[in-house]
Amino acid sequence: MSEARYNTDSVGAVIPQTMHIDVPLAFKSGAVLDRYDLVYETYGTLNAAKSNAVLVCHALNASHHVAGWYTDDPGNIGWWDNMIGPGKPLDTNRFFVIGVNNLGGCFGTTGPSSINPRTGKAYGSTFPVVTVEDWVIAQAQLADRLGIGCFAAVLGGSLGAMQALQWSLCYPDRIRNAVIVAAAPQLSAQNIAFNEVARQAITTDPDFHGGDYYAHGVVPRRGLRLARMIGHITYLSDDAMMEKFGRTLQSGAINFHFDVDFAVESYLRHQGDKFAEYFDANTYLLITRALDYFDPAQSTSGNLSLAMAHAKAKFLVVSFTSDWRFSSERSREIIKALLDNRLDVSYAEIDAPHGHDAFLLDDARYHALVRAYFDNIDTAI
Amino acid sequence: MSEARYNTDSVGAVIPQTMHIDVPLAFKSGAVLDRYDLVYETYGTLNAAKSNAVLVCHALNASHHVAGWYTDDPGNIGWWDNMIGPGKPLDTNRFFVIGVNNLGGCFGTTGPSSINPRTGKAYGSTFPVVTVEDWVIAQAQLADRLGIGCFAAVLGGSLGAMQALQWSLCYPDRIRNAVIVAAAPQLSAQNIAFNEVARQAITTDPDFHGGDYYAHGVVPRRGLRLARMIGHITYLSDDAMMEKFGRTLQSGAINFHFDVDFAVESYLRHQGDKFAEYFDANTYLLITRALDYFDPAQSTSGNLSLAMAHAKAKFLVVSFTSDWRFSSERSREIIKALLDNRLDVSYAEIDAPHGHDAFLLDDARYHALVRAYFDNIDTAI
Repeated sequence: MSEARYNTDSVGAVIPQTMHIDVPLAFKSGAVLDRYDLVYETYGTLNAAKSNAVLVCHALNASHHVAGWYTDDPGNIGWWDNMIGPGKPLDTNRFFVIGVNNLGGCFGTTGPSSINPRTGKAYGSTFPVVTVEDWVIAQAQLADRLGIGCFAAVLGGSLGAMQALQWSLCYPDRIRNAVIVAAAPQLSAQNIAFNEVARQAITTDPDFHGGDYYAHGVVPRRGLRLARMIGHITYLSDDAMMEKFGRTLQSGAINFHFDVDFAVESYLRHQGDKFAEYFDANTYLLITRALDYFDPAQSTSGNLSLAMAHAKAKFLVVSFTSDWRFSSERSREIIKALLDNRLDVSYAEIDAPHGHDAFLLDDARYHALVRAYFDNIDTAI
Repeated sequence: MSEARYNTDSVGAVIPQTMHIDVPLAFKSGAVLDRYDLVYETYGTLNAAKSNAVLVCHALNASHHVAGWYTDDPGNIGWWDNMIGPGKPLDTNRFFVIGVNNLGGCFGTTGPSSINPRTGKAYGSTFPVVTVEDWVIAQAQLADRLGIGCFAAVLGGSLGAMQALQWSLCYPDRIRNAVIVAAAPQLSAQNIAFNEVARQAITTDPDFHGGDYYAHGVVPRRGLRLARMIGHITYLSDDAMMEKFGRTLQSGAINFHFDVDFAVESYLRHQGDKFAEYFDANTYLLITRALDYFDPAQSTSGNLSLAMAHAKAKFLVVSFTSDWRFSSERSREIIKALLDNRLDVSYAEIDAPHGHDAFLLDDARYHALVRAYFDNIDTAI
């Protein structure tokens, strides 16, 4: 397949904004947050009819910084910059794109490391356990304040895709298209198991202090580092890891020790160290738990088709052959439920070797598909 | 396939024995151990020609206690008791079977928790990094002392199978059959990655003390627990985990916390806790490193066929369809190398849903195959 050439560009320098929301949020857990901030970025221009808005939802460790860069930090490029920009698959010449850091996050949005105005201390362990539904409700509050009644599309990969799916259920009249990439309708026991080991690594770190480590001037770095290492293994396919690292030895020889011998060990340690520098451990707990709990079919006794009965959006579902975290079979469970409800669904399984991470990579067939889908979305309604 | 009925029985109460070996062992690393003990068990009777001996090699967390039970602990049944006994696939009415705890172990054989006679303290971090080759050399010393010149078979699953393979290379004239179950010719980058996370969990536990925790009266329980939890995920298939645990909630409801909600979380924590009670953390490090380093083709520039040129044994290779730790593709790499050398090879891929752990389970087709293979081994040579 030959790739068409497009004139593409970056959205350029961007500035995150903060929306103060004073409407209390009642969490699914029963907890209530009186007020909260959502940090977000926008790219492109909202048209007069306000019919060209696209919400991009982030997955585990990402943020509102979806595209472009910061003037004071030009190397900090948005996590989906290859997908979003002028002339890119999600074309900011046509669409007004919003990235938002979810509740419970650690990039400016109110989360466990934020100061609780009632106590003057970090929320820490008292921050409510948040669900995908709670995130979507908060995102709708943001949309209200930006004057967006209905999104042209809500788009995400992995946990981000679960939010797009949830949008089609919570607000069927506020979403015209849901783009569901590398997702599953719910986690498998194995998925939960990996999350659980990551959480146990964090909560059993002596520096965790029951989640209130901020007061102790420490962070559970060891646990967070292990959590990230485990995560990274599940994001890559066995083949991709073999291709990337093989059994390559860092020093060219085996050294008969437990320090780094193999390149893959060096990679994992580096990724773990980097992550533990900037990510909040409580946020990691919250987000993995939101993943575990996500299950639209829970209220319909496991019948996803029944659960999707209220959805009205059109859907694009994309999966990747080598994704063993959320395999194509899991995407096809979503497809079946949508088709059972006679919804308008496009589906593609992309033959890509990279594993779950493929949703973030610049694959020509994948990007052409997303481009074609967005090209067909009418913004002049 | 209908299963034939056999009169099978247990080998009954068994007593571990200790072999003191005073011949220095020169490790592949260059380290030397002047003397060491190997703990072993035997089942059945060595015939006059000493031609019916079978060595069973253990994998990561197992031991010399392969079959039977202990009089003072009747619930402690050998880890491969379903395979080995009177009338069982490896029939102790015909074969003299030996189980041995490998060097570096923590079940009586000299290892990191043993007292170093030179210092009067536990070896701890000073215990040599051991390889599969070192284990095989030590096993041969045991065979010498038991008067066994040539094994009728060497048998193992997973890491145990790697030892059987290594026997065919180190001592081609001392092994007539190698039975290689659920193995790989070397670890993949992903396999090494999982081992590395487990090791990092242990070595970054504040109770690890650089491997010399014995002197501090503590053990790195948190790390060992995490290591075991990670291991367990890789031993089971995604489907088997889903079948066994699904998304079953321990209390029937989601509790919006980070304690146990899902049955799979409870299972993993229980497995981790149990393991941390009895297993030595340094042994875990050593055994995972032996796995990483195992690579018969390293000395032949990655050419396994060339590496296997000196083997003379007959081979039975068995893999399991749902084993994602060591997939059938990896077994077929071994097969190819054996066939390239015109060796006598039988191979079966067993359709089993349980993942890597299938090699320990009582699957009728698998056991019938092993039985048939051993039935064809002539002990009257």
